Amino acid sequence: MTTTSEIPTPALLLDRAKLESNAAFMTGRAKQLGVQLRPHMKTAKSVDVARIATAGNFGGITVSTLAEARYFMKAGLRDITYAVGLAPSKIDEALSLASLGADLNVLTDNIELARYLISRAAGQSDSPLSLLIEIDCGDRRGGVAPDSAALLEIARLVNGRAGVLFAGVLTHAGHSYACSSVNEIAQVAEDERAAAVLAAQRIRDLGMACDTVSVGSTPTATHARHLDGVTEMRPGVYMFGDLDQVGLESLPDDRIAVSVLASVIGAYPDRLIVDAGGLALSKDTSAQRHNPNIGYGRVVGLRGASVVKANQEHGIIMAEDPGVLRDVKVGDRVRIVPNHVCMTAAAHPGYYVVNGTKVLDRWPRINGWEQWTVATRKAK
Amino acid sequence: MTTTSEIPTPALLLDRAKLESNAAFMTGRAKQLGVQLRPHMKTAKSVDVARIATAGNFGGITVSTLAEARYFMKAGLRDITYAVGLAPSKIDEALSLASLGADLNVLTDNIELARYLISRAAGQSDSPLSLLIEIDCGDRRGGVAPDSAALLEIARLVNGRAGVLFAGVLTHAGHSYACSSVNEIAQVAEDERAAAVLAAQRIRDLGMACDTVSVGSTPTATHARHLDGVTEMRPGVYMFGDLDQVGLESLPDDRIAVSVLASVIGAYPDRLIVDAGGLALSKDTSAQRHNPNIGYGRVVGLRGASVVKANQEHGIIMAEDPGVLRDVKVGDRVRIVPNHVCMTAAAHPGYYVVNGTKVLDRWPRINGWEQWTVATRKAK
Repeated sequence: MTTTSEIPTPALLLDRAKLESNAAFMTGRAKQLGVQLRPHMKTAKSVDVARIATAGNFGGITVSTLAEARYFMKAGLRDITYAVGLAPSKIDEALSLASLGADLNVLTDNIELARYLISRAAGQSDSPLSLLIEIDCGDRRGGVAPDSAALLEIARLVNGRAGVLFAGVLTHAGHSYACSSVNEIAQVAEDERAAAVLAAQRIRDLGMACDTVSVGSTPTATHARHLDGVTEMRPGVYMFGDLDQVGLESLPDDRIAVSVLASVIGAYPDRLIVDAGGLALSKDTSAQRHNPNIGYGRVVGLRGASVVKANQEHGIIMAEDPGVLRDVKVGDRVRIVPNHVCMTAAAHPGYYVVNGTKVLDRWPRINGWEQWTVATRKAK
Repeated sequence: MTTTSEIPTPALLLDRAKLESNAAFMTGRAKQLGVQLRPHMKTAKSVDVARIATAGNFGGITVSTLAEARYFMKAGLRDITYAVGLAPSKIDEALSLASLGADLNVLTDNIELARYLISRAAGQSDSPLSLLIEIDCGDRRGGVAPDSAALLEIARLVNGRAGVLFAGVLTHAGHSYACSSVNEIAQVAEDERAAAVLAAQRIRDLGMACDTVSVGSTPTATHARHLDGVTEMRPGVYMFGDLDQVGLESLPDDRIAVSVLASVIGAYPDRLIVDAGGLALSKDTSAQRHNPNIGYGRVVGLRGASVVKANQEHGIIMAEDPGVLRDVKVGDRVRIVPNHVCMTAAAHPGYYVVNGTKVLDRWPRINGWEQWTVATRKAK
């Protein structure tokens, strides 16, 4: 039996029991809210995690890259929403995934893109792509306004085409991350719901079907009061949790499932240096909104200690009371709880799945956008 | 001939001519300063870049992980300094690299670690490791003070051991990054030089050799007035440059060699959305010290435009004058110059090497700490 004292550092640890609790919590939320759960796999990027997240649900997932889509499809998870606005240069890859058997939903808010997609997909009516229209519910990232003319224009354009099926509407309340109370998040969740439902209703008023009404972010999925009229939600970070999500009251601190294991390489009266720096932790500072002293992550088991500075391969740990660092020696190992786990996990090839200090398994991740091999080395 | 309009996005572009200019500049600086250049490969993590950076120099390199050390050694770059304090759990890997033929310099500031290293290395006198003592020149990261008793204690301990050769002293003026003028950087460079030289002199006063007196950061290597008594310098970021380095006057803006190519996936009167977000750009904000409006990177060719917000796979571009965004359409491509290229490059599998819009080659990177394969999947 391998333990966490024997694995190379820095390493990404995943507490299996906490992951399972978090997955069960959100599966329960979806049932309570009467919607389907289409977990967003952008955080975990792991088929092993996807199997846990989809258990007890309908089996559909959300992804943030076409590399994820291909990887999950190969593992048998075929009902996939690629929830990032489609670039014209990604249409061929999306069509190829559909022709290989993926039920792939793609996203746009742009009529020119929709027109181009229709022209490219026309010959592929036996394995069509499904198109979702992106709605802006207040985040001001992508999306058309739910009451816009543009929404109906795109819906009408897609209606009845070969190669592209109209699937419905999708929105994401990214601005829930800026909220400072559960009440505020619940209000953003209501705005998110209302925007998606209004958009769907306007499309139905054209006499078209609008099967999918998709919302979701971990804070709004956790704190929504109801989701009437919505068909599915797509949270992702909830599987692992992080310090930012704890600040947003998405989950309690003791349910954060991921941490970075680091070795102490320098021990001084006022600080420790560990071998997990900006790359192993990421430079994301989101949790500093909730706690300005949190730095780049909280150190487990050392009261008031956090990574106050992160160079590429060096983390500098300090504590409110430096006395808590006194007994730590070079070679000791610490666990660091991340600010924003989506960013932190992305630097690692996969997870050491643990129960306490026992390493149960290793689960790989599908990072990046394109897999390079020696064969792709030379430019064509 | 492939062009940048045909490659998948987001993608990391490397301008070969600018890389070569930057490499020649620092090679010239080293000659001018009378020291050897041991380029730090933590930024580039590429053997193709290493060959350019070591051209005209003695061939030694610096690395930030043992994964880099193994990769460069396999490519024939055998004289390697691993410039991060050694963790006890990495000693076996370091010894294995030495036994495979690497001339590997390892680093510590800790007498217990040195003692443990000596005990582990004792049986390997035919392929010893070389040990450098880390000196703190004011950065307050790792290192003993140059005038400390601890310095001499470690030097005496290592002196004349089998399996571990005493190589010298090493320091890094990371605090040069906090400077706000070239004069200040020159002063930090002098502190860095003086600390290393003092430490070396004190060791020599014991009657020991101290062959290596190693300093280096890109700002101090660029702005040092002299490096008398120093034997080598280890800058790294200079090969590529970034917005932070331009702010530190390490190089002019037009010599930044790396950018991120992104596709526009949303175009609105006040903003663009591109498919390069927090993962493709990193969440590093260092260049905001020099320009608070720079966000997560500057957009090439759109005056006053930068990535003001970075979600995982979405970059939100705004401009001081939104009019400059008017003619940009979904599907257009933009290049984004990074804040801190070490962080940005680490998210990508490698470089598309370009000359303007022509793609000349693809150069892979050695990311991370451990290479995972299917065979390493199960815990032992």
